Amino acid sequence: MSSERVISIYGPGLLGGSVALAVLERMPGVQVRFWARRDSAEKQIRARGIEAEFFTDAAAAAAGASLIILCTPVETMPGLGASIAGADLAKDCLVTDVGSVKGGVVRALEPVLGARFIGSHPMAGSEKTGIEVARADLFENAACLLTPTTATLPESLERLRGFWKALGCRILEFGPDEHDEKVARISHLPHMMAVVTTLAALRGDPEAIACVAGGFRDTTRVAAGDPGLWTGIAMGNRPALISRLKEAACTLSELVSLLERADESALRQFLAEAKALRDTVRPLPSKP
Amino acid sequence: MSSERVISIYGPGLLGGSVALAVLERMPGVQVRFWARRDSAEKQIRARGIEAEFFTDAAAAAAGASLIILCTPVETMPGLGASIAGADLAKDCLVTDVGSVKGGVVRALEPVLGARFIGSHPMAGSEKTGIEVARADLFENAACLLTPTTATLPESLERLRGFWKALGCRILEFGPDEHDEKVARISHLPHMMAVVTTLAALRGDPEAIACVAGGFRDTTRVAAGDPGLWTGIAMGNRPALISRLKEAACTLSELVSLLERADESALRQFLAEAKALRDTVRPLPSKP
Repeated sequence: MSSERVISIYGPGLLGGSVALAVLERMPGVQVRFWARRDSAEKQIRARGIEAEFFTDAAAAAAGASLIILCTPVETMPGLGASIAGADLAKDCLVTDVGSVKGGVVRALEPVLGARFIGSHPMAGSEKTGIEVARADLFENAACLLTPTTATLPESLERLRGFWKALGCRILEFGPDEHDEKVARISHLPHMMAVVTTLAALRGDPEAIACVAGGFRDTTRVAAGDPGLWTGIAMGNRPALISRLKEAACTLSELVSLLERADESALRQFLAEAKALRDTVRPLPSKP
Repeated sequence: MSSERVISIYGPGLLGGSVALAVLERMPGVQVRFWARRDSAEKQIRARGIEAEFFTDAAAAAAGASLIILCTPVETMPGLGASIAGADLAKDCLVTDVGSVKGGVVRALEPVLGARFIGSHPMAGSEKTGIEVARADLFENAACLLTPTTATLPESLERLRGFWKALGCRILEFGPDEHDEKVARISHLPHMMAVVTTLAALRGDPEAIACVAGGFRDTTRVAAGDPGLWTGIAMGNRPALISRLKEAACTLSELVSLLERADESALRQFLAEAKALRDTVRPLPSKP
């Protein structure tokens, strides 16, 4: 039995839509609301058969909700946070988000929302966007990174853990800046490297695409992601991302140098070191 | 009805095993042989239920065969080519290979095998290796790159096309050096970028692996490939691979520079250019 009554989701995209589908499937009795900037979003929500109240007024969507989840691009969150702070909030109302960057968001939202706000980052998504591709099982077996601070109340954190666990996530906890450093490593760097690989492979010879196999497909899949969304993420995590990209540049130059001197045994060692690290990724649980 | 009688496969690994399974399924009446360096390979072939004659003598395995396919690491091919050239070959015997690099292989094998040899490179594989993971449908819908030269006879080329088409491939044709340039772009570069990404992400913080999601998984999948195999491929295609890696280094430095000056609109344009190129990859045919 969930301790939530009314969950208000801001942003009916892939993530917001998937939260709604999962809540309706797994938390009987909990009421779902959606907020979107544009009226036209309501039609897309209905088209997915989601039973939810719909709002375009950010304060009205927040009034009386037990849990508010911001599923909008990270750069919109400070503005939404201010509107929500001015709403008629329930006493026990918690606010969280699903953004890929946390330092800036937490620094913007804690001053206006206080201990009500705790950041969340479910590590789930797709290169595709929009409620059309939302799925109730998107969060199943995903890591969800929570970013409590010294202001966070233990009972609020426990409620938020319970919410994401109910959606199928495993919970990990980091400070906001530590979170940004981790995701620069395992999400933002790989995204940018997929982009760089696509450009270095095809800019000079777009027709080489006729030869692609599974390796290219997988290595560059995320480069098909939404440029606007990823511009916001990269700008929001600039310092950590720049450090990672500079480390990648050093590693790449290490590789070029050992190829130039035809150092076969160093090359084998370089590849073996990467394999040993890559082999620590835990296998995906097989579907029942 | 296949024009082949006896197909002799050198190297019972993922590719050799998959060729055997596909031939037995799709070319009734064709006899399959395997050559391996070690006796112990025979047991693994039998364990997959493959009906084939087994040889450890390279000349004996070649005698009387209509088609010989080298499915061993690229660096072993010159030695095998010499043994095969000295065997009691059938008059119509063709020799091909499945190696990832062609310039060096063609320059080594054409002088000893003459017009009998035409290079093939089916763009199929896996980060896993061994006959245990071989599949009859591995080549279905894969591109197969053939590398005829001025020495190639049109009727031999047509026979080789027919063979790979029967296994489910679409055929593309390039000169050996042009082939190496294409695969540096769409296979060897992405492989090395997956390796570099893995190292830059995890060398300094192996525990960040706990946070990984689908993006990291796909972008780095091939970095789990066999270091020995990929050392041979990279050494065999050094000049083309080094050019690609240097272009990747320039592209990476372009990205770092626009992040450092926080040029949001240039970043969006950079990501959009990669997306437009990545979107030209044709979707995988859906399984029936």
